[in-house]
Amino acid sequence: MVKPLFKVNTPNEVITMLKNHLNLKEITRNNIEEVDIKISLHRFLAEEIVAPANLPGFNRSIMDGYAIRAEDSFGATDALPSYLKIIGEIKMGVKPKFKINPGEVVKIPTGGMLPEGANAVMMVEYTEQIDDATVEARRSISPWENVVREDEDLKTGEIILRKGSRLRSQDIGVLAGIGKINIKIYKKPKIAIFSTGNEIIPAEGEPRIGQIRDINSYTLGACIKEAGGIPVYRGIIKDEVILLEQKIKKTIKEDEVEAVIISGGSSVGVRDITLEALDRLGKPGVLIHGVSVKPGKPTILAIADNRPIFGLPGHPVSAMIIFDLFINPLISWLQGGEYNYNSTKEIEAELTCNMVSDSGREDYIRVFVYEKNKKIYAEPILGKSGLISTMVRASGLIKIGLNIEGLEKGSKVMVRLF
Amino acid sequence: MVKPLFKVNTPNEVITMLKNHLNLKEITRNNIEEVDIKISLHRFLAEEIVAPANLPGFNRSIMDGYAIRAEDSFGATDALPSYLKIIGEIKMGVKPKFKINPGEVVKIPTGGMLPEGANAVMMVEYTEQIDDATVEARRSISPWENVVREDEDLKTGEIILRKGSRLRSQDIGVLAGIGKINIKIYKKPKIAIFSTGNEIIPAEGEPRIGQIRDINSYTLGACIKEAGGIPVYRGIIKDEVILLEQKIKKTIKEDEVEAVIISGGSSVGVRDITLEALDRLGKPGVLIHGVSVKPGKPTILAIADNRPIFGLPGHPVSAMIIFDLFINPLISWLQGGEYNYNSTKEIEAELTCNMVSDSGREDYIRVFVYEKNKKIYAEPILGKSGLISTMVRASGLIKIGLNIEGLEKGSKVMVRLF
Repeated sequence: MVKPLFKVNTPNEVITMLKNHLNLKEITRNNIEEVDIKISLHRFLAEEIVAPANLPGFNRSIMDGYAIRAEDSFGATDALPSYLKIIGEIKMGVKPKFKINPGEVVKIPTGGMLPEGANAVMMVEYTEQIDDATVEARRSISPWENVVREDEDLKTGEIILRKGSRLRSQDIGVLAGIGKINIKIYKKPKIAIFSTGNEIIPAEGEPRIGQIRDINSYTLGACIKEAGGIPVYRGIIKDEVILLEQKIKKTIKEDEVEAVIISGGSSVGVRDITLEALDRLGKPGVLIHGVSVKPGKPTILAIADNRPIFGLPGHPVSAMIIFDLFINPLISWLQGGEYNYNSTKEIEAELTCNMVSDSGREDYIRVFVYEKNKKIYAEPILGKSGLISTMVRASGLIKIGLNIEGLEKGSKVMVRLF
Repeated sequence: MVKPLFKVNTPNEVITMLKNHLNLKEITRNNIEEVDIKISLHRFLAEEIVAPANLPGFNRSIMDGYAIRAEDSFGATDALPSYLKIIGEIKMGVKPKFKINPGEVVKIPTGGMLPEGANAVMMVEYTEQIDDATVEARRSISPWENVVREDEDLKTGEIILRKGSRLRSQDIGVLAGIGKINIKIYKKPKIAIFSTGNEIIPAEGEPRIGQIRDINSYTLGACIKEAGGIPVYRGIIKDEVILLEQKIKKTIKEDEVEAVIISGGSSVGVRDITLEALDRLGKPGVLIHGVSVKPGKPTILAIADNRPIFGLPGHPVSAMIIFDLFINPLISWLQGGEYNYNSTKEIEAELTCNMVSDSGREDYIRVFVYEKNKKIYAEPILGKSGLISTMVRASGLIKIGLNIEGLEKGSKVMVRLF
């Protein structure tokens, strides 16, 4: 009745397999769109951005005061100020018509352009205006003090953002700053989700006794969105080889999805059906059957038609953990981006009890994080991986590495927050 | 020419002022919408969710094997197995018609419902089927082993999610699990953005010398989106009191925004104009003028018509830092949620050089984070707060608290990642 998982792979092996068997270059090359930068937050750039000109493009004051030749202030103090001649006032946004000669200054507001001959701005706080044409300067200032040089923000030809960058608010700001209001980005990958299991009914239905509602379509759909993809909900499917094969082929063709997730089928019979269906899809077929992760061991990965197809465990907790390990980074790669698992939000906490773990597998422990007397604690939430409520109560996950046999109470752990 | 900032407030005072002068209850009460849970990720719940029934609602096997009375396995070993009578097989999703009597078992797949009389599942690995009607059980198992009890995930009447919770993937999963596919959430707050400054031109324009493109509308718009709000771009506005007053009133009325951000106007003349315009909007008017934050000191906060109006500094870096301190949490409160600054993504790093800071103000230092020999370092990025490129090069910010006069090279710092 039972077949053992034929070979359990480590998470790193799965990642390597994915990278080796997918032609990401081909996928990304064909998935580029041009959009307004206003809708480009967290998207991945499909072009390199080079500064077309200097920014700000002129020497700009960052203070209210007087544009001055710094040399004219040298040695000035409260007791012995320099007396300088006011020859005019800078208007915002306009190129000054005058030139500063030795002993001359002009009034300048924050953001104003320095006139020719000026190389610094004396803050108004360090001056006193004597009459319409004369000001006392009471400090010595250095050349270029209180000035943003014309190329200080960006220099013509400088690379600002690289292809594959994930755009943050400030990156969008710099694009606006150079007038690049439309950019090429990679399309969000569409990912199809199927749930299997003859006991599963749609969430909107009323389960008869023995049936349960589909949870995984919803959690995985939300995970796809959070990772930057577009979920294509394909509903619940009966555990039949030909049907599964046909539905997967159909969604790849008609919905143009870049990957497929099938969740469910933790029973051996169903797993065999999924395996057979995935192997019929094309070369190279099933690559992974079983990973050394708990919860999440009965995971399947196949690749066909340059698309990964994942068979995730039916237990909601296991499915989310496996998603996070493999599909989360995949969604970045499909958009030409890198993915750095470690750069995501983590917090250090102290473990509140001993945790055992088998060597040779990665354990992911759900924890509740709380603060007490200014210290942060992580309290494991025990419970079977079929219980979605354990994830709802949890603040995050801690990982016990492959070669670690457990953690002691009081250990410092890194919690990956949800 | 210059007026000093009349009273500089600490960031905590600003937060308190916001909370005291805004009637958040009234705002949230009127901003509720009902949506499909599929589009509710990261939104804030406007209702309490209670389990309407037990989940899974029946005793469910988590293994392939035999549903059994645990008592019938007591004492069983490889050498001395129990012989049990197979009386049938459980079908997925169907309530079993039979009842288990002492000495009897039924075959059960993962996810199947336990029949009456059974209180455990013996894994198939620990059995051997002798003939159609007989199986050897080779382990002693405890009552309820390998079973999810009918109310183990959720109990009828249990509070699952509280009002004001920010929905994560697993929260959406649990809602699906109880069949709650439409929920009440708070609307995303709309926030208007104006840029001021006579030297500022639209990003799509070609600046003449002395002019620069509008960066803040784009960075702040993206920050609003990232925080969960909807930016309403209102463009660039001339520095005139009546015009500013009218435009703000118009966006509050016509766009139904919950808050207004005006950025720019770091020069004293423009700041005075903004102050006067904000004070004309209504009671209580301008509450804050100047905060003890660097960069970001010349920040204005007014409240009128139960809406906060922020005057942010014109320098892009300052504007982003002040946004993060005050408007980021505000966007959560406007949706009935809490905001925990500390729960956002942070990473510990070692500072690569000494940093000085004045006591009595919070300093935010832009840093580049890198890894070397398995250690994480934070390298300060120096540069004026007018330079957007410094934010583009930065990975995050470190804070030097109000009463700290600096940090030494090698100090451990927490970096708030972008």
